[in-house]
Parts: sequence; structure tokens; C-alpha cells
Amino acid sequence: MAAMARRVLELLILFVLARNTSPCALDVPVGSSCRYCLSWRLAVEANNLRAWRTVPLQCLHHVESYVTGSQYERDIDLIVDQIGSYVDGIEMLGDGMDAWILDVDDTCVSNLLYYRGKRYGCDPYDALGFKAWAARGECLAIPAMLGLFRRLIEDGFKIILLTGRDEESLGEATVENLRSQGYVGYERLIMRSAAYRGESAVTYKSAMRKQLVEQGYRIWGNVGDQWSDIQGEFAGNRTFKIPNPMYFVP
Amino acid sequence: MAAMARRVLELLILFVLARNTSPCALDVPVGSSCRYCLSWRLAVEANNLRAWRTVPLQCLHHVESYVTGSQYERDIDLIVDQIGSYVDGIEMLGDGMDAWILDVDDTCVSNLLYYRGKRYGCDPYDALGFKAWAARGECLAIPAMLGLFRRLIEDGFKIILLTGRDEESLGEATVENLRSQGYVGYERLIMRSAAYRGESAVTYKSAMRKQLVEQGYRIWGNVGDQWSDIQGEFAGNRTFKIPNPMYFVP
Repeated sequence: MAAMARRVLELLILFVLARNTSPCALDVPVGSSCRYCLSWRLAVEANNLRAWRTVPLQCLHHVESYVTGSQYERDIDLIVDQIGSYVDGIEMLGDGMDAWILDVDDTCVSNLLYYRGKRYGCDPYDALGFKAWAARGECLAIPAMLGLFRRLIEDGFKIILLTGRDEESLGEATVENLRSQGYVGYERLIMRSAAYRGESAVTYKSAMRKQLVEQGYRIWGNVGDQWSDIQGEFAGNRTFKIPNPMYFVP
Repeated sequence: MAAMARRVLELLILFVLARNTSPCALDVPVGSSCRYCLSWRLAVEANNLRAWRTVPLQCLHHVESYVTGSQYERDIDLIVDQIGSYVDGIEMLGDGMDAWILDVDDTCVSNLLYYRGKRYGCDPYDALGFKAWAARGECLAIPAMLGLFRRLIEDGFKIILLTGRDEESLGEATVENLRSQGYVGYERLIMRSAAYRGESAVTYKSAMRKQLVEQGYRIWGNVGDQWSDIQGEFAGNRTFKIPNPMYFVP
């Protein structure tokens, strides 16, 4: 019995060592839905998947584990580092028209607490539910993005927060939520007016950026969690896509 | 001794079980360079990292494991499935001008055998070395892309293969390589002429696409492994980015 236990023990140790020396987290058992979910999430982030309505149910645990674990934060941190390197090389004119555009939801502040109740995107989009959540003004800052916001202001950039949120119903709550989370000192918060209700984010945001450029702003950078934040006209000199595997905004 | 061995054995079993019930491959030990490499690769695919010259050395094993393992194939398969869904919905005019553009290197055929000798992109780009490799005509078809190629031709699309390879020096080898790998029946293979030597891929490929559109082709789709394949003018009605963590073409 002892000899057999020792042999099993040795095999187990070998097995564990073999797993630990694996160069990466790619060696999950074949057939696991994880491999599919890794592909699915990569396709979302590379803009290969469009107009998807819900996270595939088989990826609920994958997406939950990703957004609540440390990898999501790490992914954002690396992007913010890249933004920093790009900012280092910008030659500002310093006339007060050097601008950056930042999206709000799941770029500056997080809706993770809301999406926890929506199975991290496996439930379909709930316009009323989201509005009720946003009206509470309880979104938390995404730390790396708050750091970027502060750095950009310190450098002298004008920050334009550009959000698809409805101005009339969510204006006050949004202003207060941003303030409470440390987003102070931005140039402008542009929200969706009645004239743009029902328009796609690309159409609405392109129109707002066009106005900014016409007013003389130079859009050095544009950061969003949706491809619709950073596509269309006047997208900016350089764009950055923050991960978001929970929902798609057309 | 037997009791202690049994206890260690129990702990190991628990440990292995805990690892196996993990919802995904994200739970690698904190501090592992893998987490950084996952972020790095995601940033590459989402076009957040630009003009990078080499794969970070700490990601050699990660990238090797990714491109030689099954995840890379799975990632491509999912994209090709998405392309298929998109193709299903296209209403072709059937006048012989419904076109698709496919890139060649690491889109239709693979340079993995070459990059194995370049530490999967950790070594800097070697123009002469790559030319010598390409001249041998030994690139292997990427199976899912060959399947897509055949399906598109069967559907009646005109396939335009658009590559940055130099026409004069690599024309014959490329034609023969494609033929030997099953790429037969395409409308045109457009290679870089002397007039476009030294131009960026975006400039060269945009100019070629402009000519196609002027000739009356409708570019329904455009597939490449580089963002420079699918950005710029006349990019196509829809674009798809195939993964490539080994090199960046500006």
C-alpha cells in the first residue's frame, strides 16, 4: 500500500510539475469550452464579431472569471502604459486645443456591479435596468483610467468625455458619479441630446467629434471600450480599445 | 511515513482538482510572465500596440505555444465561421464583380516554419532571410482559409489575392506556392510592383483597392493578418483580422 501510494504520489507530482512548467495558460484540456471562449473573446476585441447580442452562455464562467479576476485589469494596465508612451511623444501646441476623448461607461467608470446581475452579459440588454442603475450614480472608477485622466490633465490636455448616455435623464447622475469617483477638471462632458436619440453610436459620436474639430480641437487620442467609440469620422490621431467582453454597442 | 504520504497525496489531489475545475485558463500563477504575454497579445490583436519590432523575449514561449498549439487554429476557425455567417447574408449581384480580398502571408499560407527559426518573432525582421524563404515556395496552406477560399469561389465571388511581396523577385515562386497548396481559381494575384517599393502596406494596398473599385469590383470582404491589410481607403464592406503575434507590418 505504501509503495503504491508513493508511486501515485510521484506520478501526481510529475503531473503538477508538467502543468506548472507550461509556458502559458493555453494548455487547458482539449474540449473545454474555455478554448472556444478564448477565441470568442479575441474575436470580439479584434472587431471580428459584430452586432452580437449576448455573451454565449457557455462562456458565462469564462467572462466572469476574466472581468472579476486580475487579467482584465492587467489588460487595461498594458493599454494605459501604451497610451503613456504615445503621450510622451506628442508635441503639444499648448494653445488649449490639444484634446483627448474618453468614453465614460466601462472606460472611465465600471458597470461591472450592474452586469454581475445580468450574468456578465449572458442576459440580453435591458435598457430600463441599465438606466435605473446609471441613475444611482454608483459606478466605480477604473483605476488605471483615472490615473490616465489625471496625467493627461496634468500634461495640459483638454479632456472631452463623450458618452452615449441620455443627457436629459442621466445628466445630473452622471456628472455627480464622475465627480465622486475623482473625474474632476475635464473640459466638457458631451451626452446624447434628444436630437441624436436612436442614432448609432458611430453616427452620434462622429458628429460630436466633427463639431470639436470644427471648433479647433486637435484630437490626439480617443479611448473607448467599444469599436463604435473609435470608428467613424474624426476618430482621432490614435485610438485605443479597452476590453469589454460583456456587451456590444452598435 | 505512509500516513504522511497519504496526506500529501490528498492535498495534491485537491490541488489538481482545484486546477481542473477552474472555469478557464486564466488562473495561472500570479507573477507569471504569461499574464503579461496574454495582455500583450490581446493588445496586438486589438490594434492597441503599433509599430512593434519584435516579440518581447519574455513572451517567446507563450507565442511559440500559441502558434504551434491548437488555440491559434481555433481562433482562426472561429473567425472563418463568422466570415461564413456574413457571406450567407450577402446578396450578390452576380455580374462577376462581387469580390473578396485576401492577403497571402499568414492569411492564406503560413510562414510558421520560417518564424520557428526566428524565435517566433523575438528576432528582428530579416528582409533577406524572409525573401530567401519565400523564394523556396514552401509555405503551407492555412487549412481554414483554404476552405474559405474554395467556398467563396464556389459561391461565385472573384478572389483578389493582394500581397506586399515583391512581384519581380517573388512572382513565380508565389504563384507556384499558392498553386501547390490548392489556391487555384482566383481572379487575380496583385503583388508589389517597383512603383510601390518602400511604400507602407496601407498606402500600397489602398491604391490597389482603389483601382479595383474603379474597375467596378464590389469589395464585400477583406481578410488579413495585419491591421495594415484592412485599414486605409476602400478597405471593403467588412474586414476580418486573423491573429498574428509574430510580426507587425506598418
